[in-house]
Amino acid sequence: MDAANTGESYSYLGPAGTFTEAALKQVPEAAGKPWRPVNNVGEALADVTSGRSVAAIIAIENSVDGGVGATLDALATMPGVRIVGEYLVPVNFVLVARPGTTLAEVRTINAHPVAYAQCRGWLERELPAHGHLPATSNVQAAAALFEDASADAAIAPPGITEHLELDVLARDIGDNPNAVTRFVLVSASRRIPDRTGADKTSLIVELPSDEPGALLAMLEQFSTRGVNMSQLQSRPIGDALGRYRFVIDLDGHLTDERVADALLGLRRTSPNVIFLGSYPRADRREVEYPSRFDDAVFIEARDWLRGLITGEPGA
Amino acid sequence: MDAANTGESYSYLGPAGTFTEAALKQVPEAAGKPWRPVNNVGEALADVTSGRSVAAIIAIENSVDGGVGATLDALATMPGVRIVGEYLVPVNFVLVARPGTTLAEVRTINAHPVAYAQCRGWLERELPAHGHLPATSNVQAAAALFEDASADAAIAPPGITEHLELDVLARDIGDNPNAVTRFVLVSASRRIPDRTGADKTSLIVELPSDEPGALLAMLEQFSTRGVNMSQLQSRPIGDALGRYRFVIDLDGHLTDERVADALLGLRRTSPNVIFLGSYPRADRREVEYPSRFDDAVFIEARDWLRGLITGEPGA
Amino acid sequence: MDAANTGESYSYLGPAGTFTEAALKQVPEAAGKPWRPVNNVGEALADVTSGRSVAAIIAIENSVDGGVGATLDALATMPGVRIVGEYLVPVNFVLVARPGTTLAEVRTINAHPVAYAQCRGWLERELPAHGHLPATSNVQAAAALFEDASADAAIAPPGITEHLELDVLARDIGDNPNAVTRFVLVSASRRIPDRTGADKTSLIVELPSDEPGALLAMLEQFSTRGVNMSQLQSRPIGDALGRYRFVIDLDGHLTDERVADALLGLRRTSPNVIFLGSYPRADRREVEYPSRFDDAVFIEARDWLRGLITGEPGA
Amino acid sequence: MDAANTGESYSYLGPAGTFTEAALKQVPEAAGKPWRPVNNVGEALADVTSGRSVAAIIAIENSVDGGVGATLDALATMPGVRIVGEYLVPVNFVLVARPGTTLAEVRTINAHPVAYAQCRGWLERELPAHGHLPATSNVQAAAALFEDASADAAIAPPGITEHLELDVLARDIGDNPNAVTRFVLVSASRRIPDRTGADKTSLIVELPSDEPGALLAMLEQFSTRGVNMSQLQSRPIGDALGRYRFVIDLDGHLTDERVADALLGLRRTSPNVIFLGSYPRADRREVEYPSRFDDAVFIEARDWLRGLITGEPGA
Repeated sequence: MDAANTGESYSYLGPAGTFTEAALKQVPEAAGKPWRPVNNVGEALADVTSGRSVAAIIAIENSVDGGVGATLDALATMPGVRIVGEYLVPVNFVLVARPGTTLAEVRTINAHPVAYAQCRGWLERELPAHGHLPATSNVQAAAALFEDASADAAIAPPGITEHLELDVLARDIGDNPNAVTRFVLVSASRRIPDRTGADKTSLIVELPSDEPGALLAMLEQFSTRGVNMSQLQSRPIGDALGRYRFVIDLDGHLTDERVADALLGLRRTSPNVIFLGSYPRADRREVEYPSRFDDAVFIEARDWLRGLITGEPGA
Repeated sequence: MDAANTGESYSYLGPAGTFTEAALKQVPEAAGKPWRPVNNVGEALADVTSGRSVAAIIAIENSVDGGVGATLDALATMPGVRIVGEYLVPVNFVLVARPGTTLAEVRTINAHPVAYAQCRGWLERELPAHGHLPATSNVQAAAALFEDASADAAIAPPGITEHLELDVLARDIGDNPNAVTRFVLVSASRRIPDRTGADKTSLIVELPSDEPGALLAMLEQFSTRGVNMSQLQSRPIGDALGRYRFVIDLDGHLTDERVADALLGLRRTSPNVIFLGSYPRADRREVEYPSRFDDAVFIEARDWLRGLITGEPGA
Repeated sequence: MDAANTGESYSYLGPAGTFTEAALKQVPEAAGKPWRPVNNVGEALADVTSGRSVAAIIAIENSVDGGVGATLDALATMPGVRIVGEYLVPVNFVLVARPGTTLAEVRTINAHPVAYAQCRGWLERELPAHGHLPATSNVQAAAALFEDASADAAIAPPGITEHLELDVLARDIGDNPNAVTRFVLVSASRRIPDRTGADKTSLIVELPSDEPGALLAMLEQFSTRGVNMSQLQSRPIGDALGRYRFVIDLDGHLTDERVADALLGLRRTSPNVIFLGSYPRADRREVEYPSRFDDAVFIEARDWLRGLITGEPGA
Repeated sequence: MDAANTGESYSYLGPAGTFTEAALKQVPEAAGKPWRPVNNVGEALADVTSGRSVAAIIAIENSVDGGVGATLDALATMPGVRIVGEYLVPVNFVLVARPGTTLAEVRTINAHPVAYAQCRGWLERELPAHGHLPATSNVQAAAALFEDASADAAIAPPGITEHLELDVLARDIGDNPNAVTRFVLVSASRRIPDRTGADKTSLIVELPSDEPGALLAMLEQFSTRGVNMSQLQSRPIGDALGRYRFVIDLDGHLTDERVADALLGLRRTSPNVIFLGSYPRADRREVEYPSRFDDAVFIEARDWLRGLITGEPGA
């Protein structure tokens, strides 16, 4: 767990004990390699593009709070990184306090804003008069309890008690028992992971400005090829109100004919398409699509067209 | 004008004097070659597929009466022919009679049904009590005046008096002064005429049966590539009511990237696509389309995709 | 069977023995009323608009030859008529000749062009050397055998032998054993037949000229309301090549909410929509559509919108 | 500036000095009324629904960071509020410190995460080694400088020096000089502000689950009526990954026929449509749309349809 062997290391949002570290534990190739904690997604991507780390794991979407803006914006503006894997971490929270504290004594709660938002229902019910002190990470919130008395309790991941001597005042305080955070592993390699049949392709697409119907035209590039979107997130481009880019996850791999053909269509109609990667889905669920969009159908059509152009008798 | 030199001849719907012959006069390569009159479009196509004629000219659409059903159905069901040229003939009619006949004496009019339909307004106005005797061709209608007295007058093309000794009772009796018939030259050659920039591509497309939205999906194959349709004709497939094939003319040539890509899309989604040919438009009007569908845009997108797949650093 | 009681009569394309008469026999309200044979569809419609007949029956589509151009064009250009019923007549043909004639002796065949086209396969197989003499109706073709010897045989409906003393040389000579002709009953009444749940609505729609995608936009008016088209026929408007109107049959009745809403959309986007009528389908098959397009869904949405506008608390 | 006169007050995210207070200063009807600072958007909306305040102003979108998740989620889940006005506040930041501090001495910066994100470029350039301490509001970040020494400087709105005795170390440190935040005024009134011709309509729409093409179908409800979207934000519904609702701003007013008709279409096809309000645009720019979607076109079509149904002779 030391970054000494630079170039082999894996970067993650630290410190130890975060959900990001839990995600990294799922990455087989990271086992036994040095893990490098960083402070934000920009640092994580910079580690990758500079070669300081072989890969980095970053949170990209939360089932409760949506796309992680900082990650999506960083992927849109930092060229040279590719997503090569996807990992899901169930999100569970405990309320922890310095030993001896009781729930009735809790006035102020230290918590990362996203974690805080996911526990709001429980907090309003159980501690209606509480105050909130924001923290930079879920682990830092707990650790700060030892630094000063500005907070009485903290919201933290369940694994926190492996690292810190804290009392658990309540478990499973998240409002949604199925909450999950999606992480992606990014690297600087141009090699695309092999097609597995259970793949995802991630893109960032800008639309031609001031063309009514441009979004519709973009979505038709997928629908006319039987390509399903599992995610569509709008993010402001940032230069003016009302200008968006779209972060899209497709079912399928770049080397699936229907996906490749949809990408051709996108590239032709969009002023900017960023290919973020094709990689195995975390849930390994096989992609389903109508059989009329099979690879063989695309190949047969190309052969037919070639025959027409060259004048082969069979065409 | 004799079909002795078999294999070099051009077939047309005879006899001499028909509008079809007028169309054939516009075909430069037919000048000086033997012309072979035939009785119907089936014979004309059979001449071409058997090698009896090098090409045949057939009427495909009339501005008043629409697509010529027999031609469209023959093209849909007789494989092995290709359209290689397009010719327009203005449609004008005269009312002719045996020498000495006056308009007031006309009771029964011999006329091909399509010609008759195009003069109905004039006839109802000038000869409200007339009867109609149908003929197999415009020229045959006139020629029949000499065979028996079953008709008093005939509707015929203006050039008829070059061939037959008849009196012209009235000129320009067609209801639409701009009426025009579109003819196509068909051959058995698999070689597609070169792209001129003012081209047309003709197709016959069947839709997947009982899929609501199938026609919409077909048309989107064109609209998403900026390909304009100049003609869309539905024709019954013939096996049951409500089953149609569509005869389509596109602006552009098979070797235009946007047309080729639309054909790929069609081929993938349609159970049957018949490519009838790409050929210069009769009016030589250059094809217009949005510049975002230029060939270069398609080529750039393919290069980009190839770079992604092979992992080139630039992509 | 006499047109004496003018104003109560039913017009049909005569003479007695035609398929049109067979269709009229299916019309319950025509039983016992005078039937008035006419020569063409224009006469039939004029009988209706002038009040000479209470209704007329006309052929609108043939499963082999497609839409009947004269009928579709007449409906598009003669205002004041409405379709009030639909009837199907199986199309079967016999080859008849003067008594004593054998099949081997047949050289020339008298036949209406549409009937001739539907028997072409049989004729080419059995009588490859035959000639064709066109007739104005299937019955006239048979009757003409007695007038002169210009033809040796005629193609006619099976019922012809009830009217004429002819030998049947061959039965069921049509190429398609399932061939059927669709007839419609038209009247001048503005009263729309009641909704039965198994209804059809017929329209003629023109597109805004020179707007690419106009056809697509028209079809979307139906698809976005779950309205299925059972027929789409293009007909030339007649003023110039490439200008079409579309004859459309929809599943459903004008008083079905989804159909009414689609008509509103059409009316807004089309320069010309002709409502030809809503009437029970000949096959009495109930219309199927996704339940999300039920009348109740449209009504609920209108109530919701009204609540929003008036500021009702419930909305 | 006191909430004594309950029921007349305006709630805003406090304390005094925030951008939200700057937005409230733009609201004419709030002048001279008590202003009530609250801690978060949930409190602000609760003030409105409980009648504690007559209205509340809340940030809904930032040109750099996108939709304000907490606001969008609160509007989606707290019924009974309506947007009645829109206000834009340019976003400018200063770096402030306790008197006597120099830029070179700054190690740790206190800042609200959104403000911090908008200054990241300047910070990485000028203070590459800094640390970040998150604050709950831009004003609280500055105020905390007097509470303890955990931070050396704070990011704050330019107006902060009117309230606090601080040194300005740098001005205009935001990365985007055109950054702007969009605020909306919400109330519990069901009365919709009158149409001005320069209006916006805000909606939250859920899609039928697991229907491919559902988003496309939703967008077609707008495009087929010429209704332009100025905003489309996806937000997780929160129950599972991949399930989104869409927050949409339309050009136009609920009483514009084309907008009303699009809402009907949405209501019919979406399992849940929340109407957030129609209100004048902050920029007062008149809505432009194709004239074929004028109110008169909708009204004429309805009259035509009514005529068909009732059988009026004119229709």
